[in-house]
Amino acid sequence: MDEFIDKYQPYDLAKMVTGLADVEQILFFTKVPRPVAAEIIEYLEPELQYRILDHIGENLAIKLLNDMSSDRAVDLLLAIHPHQARRLMEFLPKEYRKKIKTLMTYENNTAGSLATVDYIGARKHWTIEYTLNHIRKVGQEAEIVSYIYVIDTHGKLTGVVSLKEIILAKPNQKLEDIAKADVITALVDEHQEEVADTLAKYDFVAIPVVNSSQRMIGIITVDDLIDVIHEEATEDIQKLGGSQPLEESYFKNSIWDLFRKRIMWLLILFVAEAYTGNVLRHYEDTLDQVIALAFFIPLLIGTGGNSGTQTVTTLVRAMAMGEVEFKDMFKVMRKEVSTGLLLGAVMGVVAFIRANILGVGFDIGSVVAITAICIVIWASFVAAAMPLILHKLKVDPAVVSGPFIATLVDGTGLIIYFSVARLLLNI
Amino acid sequence: MDEFIDKYQPYDLAKMVTGLADVEQILFFTKVPRPVAAEIIEYLEPELQYRILDHIGENLAIKLLNDMSSDRAVDLLLAIHPHQARRLMEFLPKEYRKKIKTLMTYENNTAGSLATVDYIGARKHWTIEYTLNHIRKVGQEAEIVSYIYVIDTHGKLTGVVSLKEIILAKPNQKLEDIAKADVITALVDEHQEEVADTLAKYDFVAIPVVNSSQRMIGIITVDDLIDVIHEEATEDIQKLGGSQPLEESYFKNSIWDLFRKRIMWLLILFVAEAYTGNVLRHYEDTLDQVIALAFFIPLLIGTGGNSGTQTVTTLVRAMAMGEVEFKDMFKVMRKEVSTGLLLGAVMGVVAFIRANILGVGFDIGSVVAITAICIVIWASFVAAAMPLILHKLKVDPAVVSGPFIATLVDGTGLIIYFSVARLLLNI
Repeated sequence: MDEFIDKYQPYDLAKMVTGLADVEQILFFTKVPRPVAAEIIEYLEPELQYRILDHIGENLAIKLLNDMSSDRAVDLLLAIHPHQARRLMEFLPKEYRKKIKTLMTYENNTAGSLATVDYIGARKHWTIEYTLNHIRKVGQEAEIVSYIYVIDTHGKLTGVVSLKEIILAKPNQKLEDIAKADVITALVDEHQEEVADTLAKYDFVAIPVVNSSQRMIGIITVDDLIDVIHEEATEDIQKLGGSQPLEESYFKNSIWDLFRKRIMWLLILFVAEAYTGNVLRHYEDTLDQVIALAFFIPLLIGTGGNSGTQTVTTLVRAMAMGEVEFKDMFKVMRKEVSTGLLLGAVMGVVAFIRANILGVGFDIGSVVAITAICIVIWASFVAAAMPLILHKLKVDPAVVSGPFIATLVDGTGLIIYFSVARLLLNI
Repeated sequence: MDEFIDKYQPYDLAKMVTGLADVEQILFFTKVPRPVAAEIIEYLEPELQYRILDHIGENLAIKLLNDMSSDRAVDLLLAIHPHQARRLMEFLPKEYRKKIKTLMTYENNTAGSLATVDYIGARKHWTIEYTLNHIRKVGQEAEIVSYIYVIDTHGKLTGVVSLKEIILAKPNQKLEDIAKADVITALVDEHQEEVADTLAKYDFVAIPVVNSSQRMIGIITVDDLIDVIHEEATEDIQKLGGSQPLEESYFKNSIWDLFRKRIMWLLILFVAEAYTGNVLRHYEDTLDQVIALAFFIPLLIGTGGNSGTQTVTTLVRAMAMGEVEFKDMFKVMRKEVSTGLLLGAVMGVVAFIRANILGVGFDIGSVVAITAICIVIWASFVAAAMPLILHKLKVDPAVVSGPFIATLVDGTGLIIYFSVARLLLNI
């Protein structure tokens, strides 16, 4: 058994466990060496975690729950029924239970909700030798030993030393001699996305979380922040696609969930799009006289929508990555409208060719071509301005989805189309 | 000066350097302690890196280039002119130059291109004590000391030990006693996205890169893979927005670059959308008889496009995250079409109301309502099927962008619309 366990990573073993029958799952956990068992159980879904802890006997359950990193324990306790959570918490030593209870109070998506208390703390007057001995004693429990945090008697974080620096230092040096005093930290109520940005910027593998008076709450490790980065990108993509972001992975959402996340935007966009009906009714006479104008409605507004979607997705992402800010507004507008001019010119030529293939004559062809040029430029302008303005108004720019811009451009594009038509065709 | 340096992280100091005048930048690097200087220079753009190395004097330049982690040195050498690169390489000791040259041959976006040779290797018969002494000797050069790699005399990777395990072990234990033999590795020509997935799965902070005969090439650290995760998400978003992905950050792209990345898809979509013209000409008589049908064209095809975009963005992302695979095809179709039914029903009601507000009568109102229902279901169906089929055909599913689905649904939606109209209005 041990040799088998040794061959695999906890992640792989967790995958195997998921495939086992219920009874075998319990049996597995009673046989695996305890530290490995704790690592494996962290990769399982909360429901399965609970079932296992509930069935392997109280003794083992206490030990496993204690061995789990505190952020995972919190995830488990928050996911299961409060009754079950209370039952499990009774397994924990009083001191640890208090810490877990505090961690459970932090709001979702904040730094606090991702923090684990399984870090290594030290005092500034400790020598390297003493610190190393301390690490040997408590290191097994720690989630990450890459950094040692220097904490004063009030629980305040006053410095940080990397394990590398400790290894490289002389045994009788004191921590205060080598610790970095200006620690980069995350505030407990900071949004997880900001924390991920900080960590990515400084290339750390963990970041300490403190409260407003610099008291140490815990640490967030890089693996949790990678999950955050994935989550946030998924959210942005779903928003850009015109739906509210899903809270769970795809298959965990019921049909009803999908419906709820999509219907609101579909309705908003429908109402916004509805005015295209008024525009068209307004131009009913023009349309009645030259029915051929109708042939190009989907093509022209479609092209405007496509061009606007290209711009808006690129910009919203660039803003999320911090590449573009509101102060760059005019630079962005100039760039996008210039690009729109080039794109519009090409699309105008193609539209003219298309109109002539359909045999609607030179005049209508010209109307279509000129409209194509104007619509592409107009779409670029709107798509460049909207996310920046919304960002300034403190609205998440990702609400300007592709469908949103397409809708905006549809009605205004029609007005452009019929204005050009009336002008050129003298109707 | 030293105290000032101590207060800031290398990343922050790099930001400050960027803001200095040219002469001051050079002066700065001659004054900063060397190990810090090497860290700071890694955060600068290749152009600036080169200018600094070129001006601070050969002696210091040699040292700085040597101190830089090898993956950053490779990035620098590949970004500048080959002549300049050759000049810089002369600064490097022969052995290291050879390694760098090899790293430079790996194709962009592969594991090899991200690898650094600044890892710590060890032999299996080394004791813990001996290994720790070794780390003390070479640790300063290493980019990350969290793992020690056990390498045999042929350069093959045979095991891995974490620094934590070394600290916790007894001084006279041998590495082979505590090393894990089944190392999770990345192959040198593996795509960077796969490597990032592996690392995220196993929660490592670095992953070793080997060639096909298990010989150690280098390691990739988690910070580089975080950049990869950001890059890949950005690419997916830009593709989903209907443009080819940009190779650089937003402002590094000229207007001409933006134009090139967008025009191809705009043209493809234009050609695909052009058939809406044929559809409408085909139904010219119907349209001529009931011009009011034209009022709802943008609204109906817009709703179809919106609904399709919602589905496609959600699914393409879920596929990128590995949540949905081709084998789930029927499960996905069932889910999406069911959701489409619910959405369609609501949209049908709203469409009916809208038609009556516009005062086109009960008959046309019914046509619009029934079309709305059918189009939403149809869009859900197409948007669910396309990415999965393309994935099966080994085409990147992200080519099915929002605009792509909207275009597909526009023409077919019109056919649905006029078929329903002819049937219900008896024309």
